[in-house]
Amino acid sequence: MKKYYVDHVATNPLHPDVLKAMMPYFTEEFGNPLSVYEYGMKAKAAIESAREQVAGLVNAKPAEIIFTASGAEANNFALRGIALARQNEGKHLLVSRMEHHSVLNAARFLEKSGFTVTYLPVDKQGFVAPETVKKMITKETTLISVTHASSEVGTIEPIQEIVAIAKERNISVHTDAVATTGNIPVDMPDLGVDVMSMAAHQFYGPKGAGALVVKQGTRIVPLIYGGIQESGRRAGTENVPAIVGMGKAAELAKAELQERMAYLRPLRDKIIDAMANVERVYLTGDRNNRLPAHASFCAEYIEGEAMLLLLAAKGIFSASGSACSSKALKASPVLLSMGIPSGLAQGSIVFSLGMGNTPEDIDYIAAEFPAVIKRLREISPYSQGWGDKEEGGSCTATK
Amino acid sequence: MKKYYVDHVATNPLHPDVLKAMMPYFTEEFGNPLSVYEYGMKAKAAIESAREQVAGLVNAKPAEIIFTASGAEANNFALRGIALARQNEGKHLLVSRMEHHSVLNAARFLEKSGFTVTYLPVDKQGFVAPETVKKMITKETTLISVTHASSEVGTIEPIQEIVAIAKERNISVHTDAVATTGNIPVDMPDLGVDVMSMAAHQFYGPKGAGALVVKQGTRIVPLIYGGIQESGRRAGTENVPAIVGMGKAAELAKAELQERMAYLRPLRDKIIDAMANVERVYLTGDRNNRLPAHASFCAEYIEGEAMLLLLAAKGIFSASGSACSSKALKASPVLLSMGIPSGLAQGSIVFSLGMGNTPEDIDYIAAEFPAVIKRLREISPYSQGWGDKEEGGSCTATK
Repeated sequence: MKKYYVDHVATNPLHPDVLKAMMPYFTEEFGNPLSVYEYGMKAKAAIESAREQVAGLVNAKPAEIIFTASGAEANNFALRGIALARQNEGKHLLVSRMEHHSVLNAARFLEKSGFTVTYLPVDKQGFVAPETVKKMITKETTLISVTHASSEVGTIEPIQEIVAIAKERNISVHTDAVATTGNIPVDMPDLGVDVMSMAAHQFYGPKGAGALVVKQGTRIVPLIYGGIQESGRRAGTENVPAIVGMGKAAELAKAELQERMAYLRPLRDKIIDAMANVERVYLTGDRNNRLPAHASFCAEYIEGEAMLLLLAAKGIFSASGSACSSKALKASPVLLSMGIPSGLAQGSIVFSLGMGNTPEDIDYIAAEFPAVIKRLREISPYSQGWGDKEEGGSCTATK
Repeated sequence: MKKYYVDHVATNPLHPDVLKAMMPYFTEEFGNPLSVYEYGMKAKAAIESAREQVAGLVNAKPAEIIFTASGAEANNFALRGIALARQNEGKHLLVSRMEHHSVLNAARFLEKSGFTVTYLPVDKQGFVAPETVKKMITKETTLISVTHASSEVGTIEPIQEIVAIAKERNISVHTDAVATTGNIPVDMPDLGVDVMSMAAHQFYGPKGAGALVVKQGTRIVPLIYGGIQESGRRAGTENVPAIVGMGKAAELAKAELQERMAYLRPLRDKIIDAMANVERVYLTGDRNNRLPAHASFCAEYIEGEAMLLLLAAKGIFSASGSACSSKALKASPVLLSMGIPSGLAQGSIVFSLGMGNTPEDIDYIAAEFPAVIKRLREISPYSQGWGDKEEGGSCTATK
């Protein structure tokens, strides 16, 4: 059976050129970048070259890139590193409700460590309102963390406006740009944030490589202590092949960004348009200001897990909520925070597209999806019972 | 020019079978282990199989393995995770002076966070004395961290005796087994420790994969928060190829351990014997109770960095102290803690052997090394001046 992989926010296949770039560092160029001899120098040169490529993708300086092993590590590093570095100035953080678990749970850890966290509410499309940020700032606030875009609903947040408010008050801003870097233009100086998280496998790079971009002059406490790698800011023997792969993936993403977006946006719109015809299936997130390859919905009276399994049986590989919580079997806090009722949030489905998808893939999904929904509703104890149209109405901009 | 790689404590080339095992997970099997469909299930099965292989190497249960991205991460996780989990019982730690920077610097971070750390002294061979541990324990002590073996001097520590003392007092024990796992028999239940760190690239596995082995029932606070990966104890999309590689490397190490040790020990002894004939070059660490592939020395009136560069010019790739600090240009704290004077510790050299080395490699090194030493002494301002034989004498068991 043909496979339709439409879960690119979970992870991506490697670009063949990325794997090709990585291969020598698994074999002949296996040195430790800290070693003074030839093998070490070559490994060091390779990671410095990757640092330039990654910096180039987000218009940062190479010295601002700190390689990590994942976006989750970068997010933990950002929140805890900045909160601790500035704790003498205040112990209050603002964290949006659209954040990934790695931001939310790092914030909860800080709450247990004596910090206070205020969670920023969002509107029905998932937008954080800059005016709300302004209202919730206290004299103790040192850090604001708002995702650049949620991988669950695709909404792109007004980071620049939030930064403008924060800068007037000397508050640091972190953005989780894991879902955006390599997928839409991300210009760090233009966004104005102090720290920004990235993950290579979100743009056809390898798993095991991420970065925290730290604006020059920003004080940050390390998360992983040890040797002098990454200028003493992140210890551990560098994963040279993965870093080289991240560099190559960044270079390719930068070169092909407009082309990729131009290819993916119409596919995304095609799937959104098709779903508009499916009864009681509602778009989540904003219709326009969203990730170019991201189409997310809630289906009324449907259990997300069952929907995924029936779709998988038809070769359609998609996700319900965040991959990092898809087996946790709880309604997504992101969807709940947007005012979507718990029963509807359970029926969440995300189709995230990639360069391997074709218009025919969308035709197939559009043709098969309604039957899956119909079958699940037939067996649902709720489908004739409680809930009403308004519930669904609260989660959509399009119906 | 032929290359003589004798820096296997810095990193190792991948075993060809390890790379072969990893390859499918870079291409067709690229799924996220948390995804419910086929690609996800295959990735999940692959990491669970690797978990069994890694557990098998150290006689642990698969559920006790928490994959990390490095030994450094595992060490930070262990110290901070146990210290925080037990902070209501006490805030005192015992940490040996033989530890890697990732342990020492994690301990220093805890000191800044309100914990008290006592650093365990060592004798001239680098051994921590169990009686010293006993004396330094307080009612507040919750955790003792002693390396299984130092990668700088090769000395294997008396972990079981330390554990016996700790267990009587309900104190947790961590051992950094990065230098030992895959290189000597390491049986976690037999050692008796509660938490143990490993790194795959120390036994022909990939960079970017490590593990913290956490004995069942041990409470530990995560270092990286986020999704539900690793049973909620370590977040971040799993680096599937690296984890698969670590599993394969563990399986191979287990199967070949005796054979590897039998091959490497005579090579190590050959180099130690050869160095015994070089004037004012002293073995560091214990002569017998040391890592089977590890030969470390201090050369009087020599600057380590210069020695490495001259050796590299002859194709001999070795290290001075720990790779993680070799560019930090400070005398190794480990050597200083053994009572080696700073001037002598500067002339530290470690030859760490691997399965690619031959007896002829050792002959070549033994032939070239004295000329390097002679040349450096000729240009050293100190070589005719200060220092005396006793200084050197303090660092050796053999001269």
